Amino acid sequence: MTKPLILISNDDSISAPGIRYLIGLMRKIGQVVVVAPSDPQSAKSHSITITNPLRAKTIEKSHEYSEYSLNGTPVDCVKFALHRLLDRKPDIIVSGINHGSNASINIIYSGTMAAATEGAMGGIPSIGFSILDYSEDADFSFAEEYIISIVNKVINDGLPKNTALNINFPISNGKKYNGLKVCRQADGYWKEDFEERLDPRDGKPYYWLKGDFQLHDKGDDTDEYALRNYYVSMVPVKFDFTDYSNIENLKSFES
Amino acid sequence: MTKPLILISNDDSISAPGIRYLIGLMRKIGQVVVVAPSDPQSAKSHSITITNPLRAKTIEKSHEYSEYSLNGTPVDCVKFALHRLLDRKPDIIVSGINHGSNASINIIYSGTMAAATEGAMGGIPSIGFSILDYSEDADFSFAEEYIISIVNKVINDGLPKNTALNINFPISNGKKYNGLKVCRQADGYWKEDFEERLDPRDGKPYYWLKGDFQLHDKGDDTDEYALRNYYVSMVPVKFDFTDYSNIENLKSFES
Repeated sequence: MTKPLILISNDDSISAPGIRYLIGLMRKIGQVVVVAPSDPQSAKSHSITITNPLRAKTIEKSHEYSEYSLNGTPVDCVKFALHRLLDRKPDIIVSGINHGSNASINIIYSGTMAAATEGAMGGIPSIGFSILDYSEDADFSFAEEYIISIVNKVINDGLPKNTALNINFPISNGKKYNGLKVCRQADGYWKEDFEERLDPRDGKPYYWLKGDFQLHDKGDDTDEYALRNYYVSMVPVKFDFTDYSNIENLKSFES
Repeated sequence: MTKPLILISNDDSISAPGIRYLIGLMRKIGQVVVVAPSDPQSAKSHSITITNPLRAKTIEKSHEYSEYSLNGTPVDCVKFALHRLLDRKPDIIVSGINHGSNASINIIYSGTMAAATEGAMGGIPSIGFSILDYSEDADFSFAEEYIISIVNKVINDGLPKNTALNINFPISNGKKYNGLKVCRQADGYWKEDFEERLDPRDGKPYYWLKGDFQLHDKGDDTDEYALRNYYVSMVPVKFDFTDYSNIENLKSFES
């Protein structure tokens, strides 16, 4: 029997601990191809590279395991894998494990989730994994059983068409997670603060983006709620952005 | 009476014909502040700049009209305007006029629409305008009456909370558009082709992303359908990506 073909990407770059951990897990399950950014691409959202040429570097290549880095975004990586590199469709695409939350509105900025969404757009069951821990020494050990079981289930059963999964793990407190909850995206917002500093060369100001996350949502069915209660959160994500509830309301604009 | 405060951004950069045209129109309506990227940022989606410092350049500054360029993405521009530059909330944010379609799945890659969505996330009525014409000489003249009337209506009546408008104009055929349709986002996909070339320095391959748009949608209620029939398309866009229709289906993952 052919082993399942698993495509892996991320946004923290090919050398990030999160993707190295995920690669280790996926090699237990199937034939693995990694195509990941050569440099960090956090907060690159669904951007693609159209004004620069892309260059791929082969790091390892065998039937069981291949690894490439690309000087592009996470979505570039998925497109390059699907449309140039692979001679068959992957059975699943997994992205991550991202260092930092992609819950609530973070998803809109996330390169990790964009890679998964791009996979779903291509008709491939796709999952983004993130942990609420920026540390290089993040403890992924309690995530392992969830990742293995979710990936196996998705390989066997597939996912609903046009849907990717956004899965977040709380930062580990050294104990098993309380379980997994299927959630909706919490209503939240980044209130930004631009820190001004003066350039030592010319004394002119420059700015660092430095935000403060505000949770506007009191629901107990959200990803934020699950994570704050030490549950793993799973949000089904789609890429039809139409606000159907307001199509009728806007008919007065028609002519 | 205080004039409405209008914030303008785009992704084609501050010198693009589309934004210059939009600035001209908006100055007839209100007090205008422009914060736009110093360089082209097409296909940058909702990305933000977190690893580089941002620098703003004041191009013009008066009570009636101010213009700044920023070495960042469209979303950086909106965040910088809202959280650093302006001392009151704009009454409306308009983004564009983008050179090229943001209908169907193009919205997910679009910096122009990301600027509008970021505005809506901040609670400000926000609209992205695009025309299906990449030319520097694009004919915006038939878009004018729609833009003026939509912007005035939105300033007066507002928009539903958490909703931005994605408005696309067909390429002009020298005649008035047939009207405006409120639509849903068409189901479409970019099938990419990576054109391989050889680097003259070392003979190694590099790649240009070069896609082919595939419309998978046969509906007559989509933005693509409206545009192909010479109508202006308006899609209400939200930023809750939860696929509510599949939350129940996925409960078998819970533990």
